[in-house]
Amino acid sequence: MIKKYIMTPGPTPISEEVLMEHAKPLMHHRSPEFSKVFMEVTEKLKKLFKTKNDIFILTSSGTGAMEAGVTNFFSRGDKVLVASIGNFGERFKKISSMFGLEVISLDYEWGDAANPEDIKKALDDEPDIKGVMVQFSETSTGAINDIKAIGNIVKSYPAIFIVDAISGLVASDLRTDEWGLDIVIGGSQKGLSAPTGVAFISVSEKAWKFNEKSDIPCFYFDLAAAKDYSQKTPPQTPWTPGISIVVALNKALDMLFEESLEKVFGRHRVLALATQKAVEKLGLKLFVKDENKRGFSVTSVMIPDGVNAKELTRIMRVKYGVTIAGGQGKVAGKIIRIGNLGYFGIFDTIIAVAALEIALNELGYKFEFGAGTAEAEKIFIKNNYLND
Amino acid sequence: MIKKYIMTPGPTPISEEVLMEHAKPLMHHRSPEFSKVFMEVTEKLKKLFKTKNDIFILTSSGTGAMEAGVTNFFSRGDKVLVASIGNFGERFKKISSMFGLEVISLDYEWGDAANPEDIKKALDDEPDIKGVMVQFSETSTGAINDIKAIGNIVKSYPAIFIVDAISGLVASDLRTDEWGLDIVIGGSQKGLSAPTGVAFISVSEKAWKFNEKSDIPCFYFDLAAAKDYSQKTPPQTPWTPGISIVVALNKALDMLFEESLEKVFGRHRVLALATQKAVEKLGLKLFVKDENKRGFSVTSVMIPDGVNAKELTRIMRVKYGVTIAGGQGKVAGKIIRIGNLGYFGIFDTIIAVAALEIALNELGYKFEFGAGTAEAEKIFIKNNYLND
Repeated sequence: MIKKYIMTPGPTPISEEVLMEHAKPLMHHRSPEFSKVFMEVTEKLKKLFKTKNDIFILTSSGTGAMEAGVTNFFSRGDKVLVASIGNFGERFKKISSMFGLEVISLDYEWGDAANPEDIKKALDDEPDIKGVMVQFSETSTGAINDIKAIGNIVKSYPAIFIVDAISGLVASDLRTDEWGLDIVIGGSQKGLSAPTGVAFISVSEKAWKFNEKSDIPCFYFDLAAAKDYSQKTPPQTPWTPGISIVVALNKALDMLFEESLEKVFGRHRVLALATQKAVEKLGLKLFVKDENKRGFSVTSVMIPDGVNAKELTRIMRVKYGVTIAGGQGKVAGKIIRIGNLGYFGIFDTIIAVAALEIALNELGYKFEFGAGTAEAEKIFIKNNYLND
Repeated sequence: MIKKYIMTPGPTPISEEVLMEHAKPLMHHRSPEFSKVFMEVTEKLKKLFKTKNDIFILTSSGTGAMEAGVTNFFSRGDKVLVASIGNFGERFKKISSMFGLEVISLDYEWGDAANPEDIKKALDDEPDIKGVMVQFSETSTGAINDIKAIGNIVKSYPAIFIVDAISGLVASDLRTDEWGLDIVIGGSQKGLSAPTGVAFISVSEKAWKFNEKSDIPCFYFDLAAAKDYSQKTPPQTPWTPGISIVVALNKALDMLFEESLEKVFGRHRVLALATQKAVEKLGLKLFVKDENKRGFSVTSVMIPDGVNAKELTRIMRVKYGVTIAGGQGKVAGKIIRIGNLGYFGIFDTIIAVAALEIALNELGYKFEFGAGTAEAEKIFIKNNYLND
């Protein structure tokens, strides 16, 4: 028997309570019973997003919602600015190019974050930029962008601001309305700790005006259709949704608010901090060098010379049941990524660090055995974070 | 306590065994464990589709897969023929027009099926037609198209043949390769009796040649990307899939093959026949007049004067826990639809008919009380179908 632990930046661990909701027989998606759940989830998402904007639930991965964020608001030939700090910034560029947008890109070293001043300069230089696309937490590196600062800049330009908050949401505070975020994208399988397969997208009034002028064809991801169906009696989705996922989400959202968002953000911060400090104690280097640019969803760790990253994650998974993630894109084989998103407590972090120590030791890497877990425990005590 | 019964043409009842698989903690979608499930499901779907063609699993409703069937294989301005016999035929037209195709439509009365000879004539008249789109079972009416005959015609023309088999699959035999079906679309939530949120699409060699020339942008539904990822080691999906749905599907497919496809088709046929004959005994008229055009997924019943369809389905659902469907599009309020798809046995049909009798009686409709259930039982005996 090998107990299994999923410690990736998505999918994330799911509580037994949520899995049991997920396993319930399905309601019909056009029934008043489902509409009630659908409205509840929508309202709770608004509370999580801190917005009065419309929010739509899409049955797709987060990438589908990123596509919806591009195809619903622009026209072919429109100029958009993508500040790319990793793999998902690159994905925004690919989607935008695919649908005929002209992409201006601000590329940062992977592990770095976007400089809001660069975005301001780009908007000043090219006043016809119609949209600015940025990740909140960049899942591929663990870096976090200063969305508040960027939002504050973009809101005084004609462009709309599109934020991929898929892995950042729930781990860190995000204030859609206060920060002026026109489009915010989230997913079910990250901090929300529900099963994969559903994504969300919020749309501001400013963005709806862009939607009216958009000439890019879309059908499955047509948000005007989603709005139309959400205003029916009872409210519903245009196409059959992932019913059991939405039902699971309802429970997952309740659990977040029971804990309180402030505590949820605090928990993610301390778990990430403990992971960061623990791996440093093992003599490893963090991929995000500037500690102010480290997000609290996932910790990226550089793999030292002489250790094979693939072999390391394989040993952790196969021999010890602990699944963490490797690097994506150009840092594949160079980093490992340890998530602490969602249904994740202090002892999960201890497990992640212990499994890492055991596997590193097997691969001949020299370090003070046990120093990582000891450091994690110290961080919990120091931050007065013992689940009280 | 009101026991709940879902008897719509989707979502359909799900077995406890499948729900329990669905409730398992999630595997990571890039892990060898999930790849194994993903490959198993793909192979089992090929067995169900009776094909050697590629099959891809998409995380979306069936409509998403219909969109994929349009955007991956044509170019703007291409001429396509849609034979429309109901709401989902209309949807093929809308999707095709949205993405810039020129739609030639063959419209039939709702409740009727397409005449293969009309399709032959259209292909002869317009030799530059690039694709023919047809439903297998038209979910909105319960009629079934003769896909074998149409396939036999289309295969000698340059056009590809696209079949929406979402509600027809599992209820009736479909032979993708033998009948020359280039694109076949299915969904998780119909005959397969798994949760909503995943769709499938098969692609023939002939269709791949069209894919190479297609100029319609697509990203989330890009099937060439899906093919690319399916050929990685281990095989995977380009974007995060609905993991718990795919896991549930694996079990649902096992249950189909344990029963044997022949018996599964026989079961759906007898259940549909019993429903048809039972409602006729109540003096009601079937919406599909020609019995050779009636499918075995869903039975559409015309609502007699003096009975309010919406009130009828409301009473059945609210007072007796039995959810059936009303009419869609232009037959809303005029018909009701009783599904018998998936995890559905003879006593489910008895329940559907009994609930219908009780609700009709409450609404003052005059008929021989109990005649429907008696007739259903007789059909089971007559067809030697008592689960032996």
